[in-house]
Amino acid sequence: MADLHDVVARIAAEMAAEPVRGKVADYIPELAKVSADHFGMVVITAAGEEVAAGDADTPFSIQSVSKVFALVEALSRDPDRVWARVGREPSGGAFNSIVQLEAEAGRPRNPFINAGAIAITDLVAAGEDAENPGRAGIGAILRLVRSLAGDDSIAIDGAVAYSEAATGHRNAALAHFMKAHGTIDGPVSTTLSTYFHQCAIAMSCRQLARAGRFLMNGGVDPATGRAIVNPERARRIAALMLSCGHYDASGEFAFQVGLPAKSGVGGGILAIAPGRASIAVWSPGLSPQGNSLLGTAALERLAHAMGWSVFNPDC
Amino acid sequence: MADLHDVVARIAAEMAAEPVRGKVADYIPELAKVSADHFGMVVITAAGEEVAAGDADTPFSIQSVSKVFALVEALSRDPDRVWARVGREPSGGAFNSIVQLEAEAGRPRNPFINAGAIAITDLVAAGEDAENPGRAGIGAILRLVRSLAGDDSIAIDGAVAYSEAATGHRNAALAHFMKAHGTIDGPVSTTLSTYFHQCAIAMSCRQLARAGRFLMNGGVDPATGRAIVNPERARRIAALMLSCGHYDASGEFAFQVGLPAKSGVGGGILAIAPGRASIAVWSPGLSPQGNSLLGTAALERLAHAMGWSVFNPDC
Amino acid sequence: MADLHDVVARIAAEMAAEPVRGKVADYIPELAKVSADHFGMVVITAAGEEVAAGDADTPFSIQSVSKVFALVEALSRDPDRVWARVGREPSGGAFNSIVQLEAEAGRPRNPFINAGAIAITDLVAAGEDAENPGRAGIGAILRLVRSLAGDDSIAIDGAVAYSEAATGHRNAALAHFMKAHGTIDGPVSTTLSTYFHQCAIAMSCRQLARAGRFLMNGGVDPATGRAIVNPERARRIAALMLSCGHYDASGEFAFQVGLPAKSGVGGGILAIAPGRASIAVWSPGLSPQGNSLLGTAALERLAHAMGWSVFNPDC
Amino acid sequence: MADLHDVVARIAAEMAAEPVRGKVADYIPELAKVSADHFGMVVITAAGEEVAAGDADTPFSIQSVSKVFALVEALSRDPDRVWARVGREPSGGAFNSIVQLEAEAGRPRNPFINAGAIAITDLVAAGEDAENPGRAGIGAILRLVRSLAGDDSIAIDGAVAYSEAATGHRNAALAHFMKAHGTIDGPVSTTLSTYFHQCAIAMSCRQLARAGRFLMNGGVDPATGRAIVNPERARRIAALMLSCGHYDASGEFAFQVGLPAKSGVGGGILAIAPGRASIAVWSPGLSPQGNSLLGTAALERLAHAMGWSVFNPDC
Repeated sequence: MADLHDVVARIAAEMAAEPVRGKVADYIPELAKVSADHFGMVVITAAGEEVAAGDADTPFSIQSVSKVFALVEALSRDPDRVWARVGREPSGGAFNSIVQLEAEAGRPRNPFINAGAIAITDLVAAGEDAENPGRAGIGAILRLVRSLAGDDSIAIDGAVAYSEAATGHRNAALAHFMKAHGTIDGPVSTTLSTYFHQCAIAMSCRQLARAGRFLMNGGVDPATGRAIVNPERARRIAALMLSCGHYDASGEFAFQVGLPAKSGVGGGILAIAPGRASIAVWSPGLSPQGNSLLGTAALERLAHAMGWSVFNPDC
Repeated sequence: MADLHDVVARIAAEMAAEPVRGKVADYIPELAKVSADHFGMVVITAAGEEVAAGDADTPFSIQSVSKVFALVEALSRDPDRVWARVGREPSGGAFNSIVQLEAEAGRPRNPFINAGAIAITDLVAAGEDAENPGRAGIGAILRLVRSLAGDDSIAIDGAVAYSEAATGHRNAALAHFMKAHGTIDGPVSTTLSTYFHQCAIAMSCRQLARAGRFLMNGGVDPATGRAIVNPERARRIAALMLSCGHYDASGEFAFQVGLPAKSGVGGGILAIAPGRASIAVWSPGLSPQGNSLLGTAALERLAHAMGWSVFNPDC
Repeated sequence: MADLHDVVARIAAEMAAEPVRGKVADYIPELAKVSADHFGMVVITAAGEEVAAGDADTPFSIQSVSKVFALVEALSRDPDRVWARVGREPSGGAFNSIVQLEAEAGRPRNPFINAGAIAITDLVAAGEDAENPGRAGIGAILRLVRSLAGDDSIAIDGAVAYSEAATGHRNAALAHFMKAHGTIDGPVSTTLSTYFHQCAIAMSCRQLARAGRFLMNGGVDPATGRAIVNPERARRIAALMLSCGHYDASGEFAFQVGLPAKSGVGGGILAIAPGRASIAVWSPGLSPQGNSLLGTAALERLAHAMGWSVFNPDC
Repeated sequence: MADLHDVVARIAAEMAAEPVRGKVADYIPELAKVSADHFGMVVITAAGEEVAAGDADTPFSIQSVSKVFALVEALSRDPDRVWARVGREPSGGAFNSIVQLEAEAGRPRNPFINAGAIAITDLVAAGEDAENPGRAGIGAILRLVRSLAGDDSIAIDGAVAYSEAATGHRNAALAHFMKAHGTIDGPVSTTLSTYFHQCAIAMSCRQLARAGRFLMNGGVDPATGRAIVNPERARRIAALMLSCGHYDASGEFAFQVGLPAKSGVGGGILAIAPGRASIAVWSPGLSPQGNSLLGTAALERLAHAMGWSVFNPDC
């Protein structure tokens, strides 16, 4: 078995030197400002060791990685409503596709495509304080993330949230379409506002890897001993991450890396090696499918060097 | 840890008593004749133990399970041509859908939907003896399966193959469509004939579980010590089985069972618990998506009882 | 040649007696209140004769019939921008489908499906008074309709407009989707408000038939002698009405009736027999495709009795 | 009113000088051999006058124009079976699309897209002499065309028919797909063979314009006085030609030209001005949608100069 410190250091050095770095998301100005030169990585093992490299402590916009936490929050309230509302199948389409919604009566394929995530966020945003619409939902997600990371300094990047709201017409189309089909309950504006704020949570690799520890550990947060989800739910969330965590490149990621993982267009990826490690990588340049190019490469090398693919027989 | 013998016996008893058994495939008369009462299961562990229950030695038509073996054969010849021809993503559609082919210029999403499997079989059928078109391709697949199972009595059910050819217009449509796009090389009739014969291979659960041992074992056939594929390829085939092995219910299977597996409309499923077991189940009644209803239920119970989900941290 | 008075009277009697009347639109409460018992019809000939029957003077919500007038208004301003924005092909899909938009980069197939009509209305709503967003656009459309009908009493049904806005999530999805693709310029809320008000214009058959006279007359309003559009544009609008005027039942309408016509879910249809007549019918019960059931039947009988199909050789 | 001789001569001269001529169909070698320099045009008026220009007597492959004659033949046998099998709506897709078929259970949208035409030909090919499969069907279509044109020398270009059969995998995909859905009855090979031969009928503009005379004339062949179809059916076929005659450019053709017409990838178009003229044009260069570029331009100029649009009020 390779030494984790050596492996992480070597991968970080390789990624720093990599000339082809992908294209930074430009659909909102705030994301486009970030340099593609960044690369960060933090691995936290089941034994509690924390191995970091590169820009491990620079906060970035977690974007769709937040969908994992929103799902955990919604499942903790009412799993039946979650699965009545979204499916568990890969969509076979792009992250923001509306075609599948029309063909399937407004029911999103899974909670990790945009439509599905908006439907999940709508559950979390329900039962809002009428005077502060959206406040309770985003508060709940932020509290969960802070608690999991053990870090109350985690915050929402207001400029990103504002930017998303101003330009998020595609997401607004998805939300209105689902509203027309009864898939979401709340006022569209409240649901979208909550969703845009959730996507604008800023975290470093270190914070993100910490927030993911419960998923490698059968649902129990090792820092507190608290069961965030039960073991079966932890396995199932991991299965969804493997099947659907990289949009229309999920099959490719499973094929190349073999780890449950969720990516975001901010360039972050949270990956889980069950029983072994919680891993966060960040590099803002994206593949054409919208996943971090170097983040994916780094995870592939890590999984290969450490033998961490879930399909590896030597466990 | 539960005792495997007890678990298998209990599951077989439960399956025998189950009143809702799904609907036997009726699209070809030969398959429709089989009784939904059948249930068989064989588990072969990494240690070499073989635990059987129910109709473990009754041959059935393996149908799409054969796609795994055809893929192994094609990869052994020229992996670059395989991946130039088919993708590695879930299709988001039914097993025999042609829509995705039109949208994506005749390139199938993955090797386990019908279109992709036909494209793979076409590679295996290439370089045929002109006097015996189709003979060499099906011969190669049959030799591989016999060798892996260590059983030269495995044969093709001629009546099923004939039946498939007579009624396989949907597959013929896929093949002609791909031929129009240059995705397949051979004469359509030769490729289809090879494909229909491959699907008509008849095997028992015992034979099938034996034929799958190399996939739990890092690519090495434990019976012979021969490397059928290298460890990386074994992992990758398992990843494809998890992502795409159950057509448009693959995400659900990953969610519920958590094992790489490939199903066939004959009611058989080959599942792999990497490093632990090769498993074959058979029950002819199908779910609406075309996967064995009781076979899936049995695998879910087995994976749960034994802790064999690939997403389980306790490895 | 049959006598027009006899024909219209006979058709109205037949329609009054017809037991199967279709289903009144129920997607907004204001429309659902209208009784399916209504039937009205007005035919105005090229010679200026006005033949009425049934509820000829009862105002109804013209809904999508308004798309013809919005198109005329937009073309009068800048035809190049109109045709840069929408196509001229039947969509092959439902009136409110979003699938085609995704496949074709946000460009609607034609100005008579909802997406295309919203894009056209956005052109009309442009250059708004910032203090009264939406006021100028809807004002222009209303002025055009009043002028064509020679009747300043034509008004917008505010309850319908409010109802549409409150429930129009599907249209909001279309608008946001197009906004994301740059197909519409204005703020989505302004464009939608204008669109919902335009659809809520209330007119009687008599008013509607009068407003359509210029289209039977080579573009010239016979009441005023004013050229509303030039002859070529009048022909082309008629061609669009024939190809695309009945959503996904346009081909069937051309086949059965053979007249350019535009329907609305309020149950109204404006039909044009070039050189012969402007015709308005109204009956609120709809076919599954959303077109007036008895209105269509009445037009078919009228066209047949009078020999008015554009495909008739005896002109 | 312009003089028809002058108009036709002027248009032919303009077309001869036109530098941009489109791209000759290259999907079968026999069609690719034809020079894009050709242009021919024949107009036959209701009064029986025959005005010709350019390559008016050069035979070309009529290809999809044959679908009109196959439809007439099938309707003459059993209209109920025709309309049970195919719809009357524009497809909103390409001429050879298979997507719509999958979405709509194997029922083609109309008889003029390839799928619909194959389904119609299958009706004509039914009841074949078992010893000469396909002989009776193609014989019937050829007899009809010869009779309508008053010219027994019209023949099938065997090289084209052979070429189509050898390369027609896309059409074979459509046929097998429909066979799987029960939309066609005959053996796929017989139906396809009939279809390929029908498409390979070679005719000159003069022969084609003559064969179309009954459609301008209320269904009666003016040469013989025989009613080929009744007046209602003649109108309805014209309506289908207007709605669906130019594949996914039918709306545009209606908008620009305003005449019922059917195009073929050989570069021919048969257009009908009801009560006025039967028109055939031919120029092999195609638009991206597969319609003759100069043929369309010539018809637009002719319809404009003569005032022959069906949407023209001056009839």
